[in-house]
Amino acid sequence: MTERGTLIAVGLGPGDPELVTLKALRVLQSADVIAYFAKAGNESHAYTIAARHLRADVVKLPLLYPVTTEIDKNTAPYQDAICGLFDQSAATIAQHLDRGVTVAVVCEGDPLFYGSYMHLHARLASRYSTEVIAGVTGMSGCWSSVGTPIAQGDDVFTVLPGTLAEAELERRIGDTDAAVIMKVGRHLPKVRRVLERSGRLARAIYIERGTMNGAKAMPLRDKTDDRAPYFAIVLVPGWEARS
Amino acid sequence: MTERGTLIAVGLGPGDPELVTLKALRVLQSADVIAYFAKAGNESHAYTIAARHLRADVVKLPLLYPVTTEIDKNTAPYQDAICGLFDQSAATIAQHLDRGVTVAVVCEGDPLFYGSYMHLHARLASRYSTEVIAGVTGMSGCWSSVGTPIAQGDDVFTVLPGTLAEAELERRIGDTDAAVIMKVGRHLPKVRRVLERSGRLARAIYIERGTMNGAKAMPLRDKTDDRAPYFAIVLVPGWEARS
Repeated sequence: MTERGTLIAVGLGPGDPELVTLKALRVLQSADVIAYFAKAGNESHAYTIAARHLRADVVKLPLLYPVTTEIDKNTAPYQDAICGLFDQSAATIAQHLDRGVTVAVVCEGDPLFYGSYMHLHARLASRYSTEVIAGVTGMSGCWSSVGTPIAQGDDVFTVLPGTLAEAELERRIGDTDAAVIMKVGRHLPKVRRVLERSGRLARAIYIERGTMNGAKAMPLRDKTDDRAPYFAIVLVPGWEARS
Repeated sequence: MTERGTLIAVGLGPGDPELVTLKALRVLQSADVIAYFAKAGNESHAYTIAARHLRADVVKLPLLYPVTTEIDKNTAPYQDAICGLFDQSAATIAQHLDRGVTVAVVCEGDPLFYGSYMHLHARLASRYSTEVIAGVTGMSGCWSSVGTPIAQGDDVFTVLPGTLAEAELERRIGDTDAAVIMKVGRHLPKVRRVLERSGRLARAIYIERGTMNGAKAMPLRDKTDDRAPYFAIVLVPGWEARS
């Protein structure tokens, strides 16, 4: 009987190909199968970063999202479609693992921090040997690229989705020393209003495309239009040089 | 006139030497001066990770903490001593930069996320060219090492210092989907009580020494003693497999 293979989640960092770790590199160079989530018709950032390191005979296994992020996630059709993707992806990966090969799922950022990989982990970790390789998060890439200290000492630091209702977002911004607001997209005007009223607009920084090609960063107060990609983020630094 | 050198903060990740990035590796291999914070008489984890990659003729610049983390940080003598260290360290680094060489400050984790480097950045970034290389955070290393998904989708995620007063810690745990409690140390009994009352003890995970040699991880409810190192952390996962 063939020994079962290992499932490895590989965090590839925020986009800059040099922010891949030595551990990720080692796994990429030896993996039998490389799996990655992608939207149909779009390139996968994770696959693009990984591609230069892969074996020539690696098996590519794209896991294609059936719907876009713009569809309401609280509807039954979305839930069914996305659940079907995760079930089908896990089943396909399991077939490879049963052949005894190593399957690397490449992930932007850090796999277990807001990553899609965890849906595969939940379906497979009880049956197969797994390993998770931590990666540099998108938010770390962002504050490092602009040289903005985010939190220090006993600061409370909070990650907030831009999707929160305006009053709730304002309450939470008022209750934390430092924050990152994720998935800004069409919520940018709301985010700007909340930070203005909270007295935190002056130091807030708007960033799109993180450390990738075409990255943009600017003080939020200097961004005069309301166009922001879904994955744009806003940094709300908690720390000011105190001595 | 000599061109001024560059100050580079190098995030080295959570402890596992393989979690160093390719970018960090490149800087370590070429830096003229390597600076690192350390307690007098203790090894620096960051220096230990970096050492194998350094040039044979690199200049070592230890920046020694005058006091330990166990002293009350709210006292004037502590503040004076620590401020003196940062001032003196910045002045020494500035002398090297004025010679036109590259100074790499090596940091555990991610330099601008609860790191001491930011005190040097605040003193030097207006006068010298700087670069910050993001690293894998200690908390990412921790949840990856135990394969515990921490946050997903629109979860609110919060980093809380174990030093918070009990009622305040409880309020904040009740107000977040996912959390990491840092600097657990002598606050462990309080952290355990708060999670018990919040109904979050069952899934909480206790971790000490992250991805370093001698790392320990266990469900918090299985840790029956109250001894925890200062830098121990507790993970409070927000995400459960929903489908």
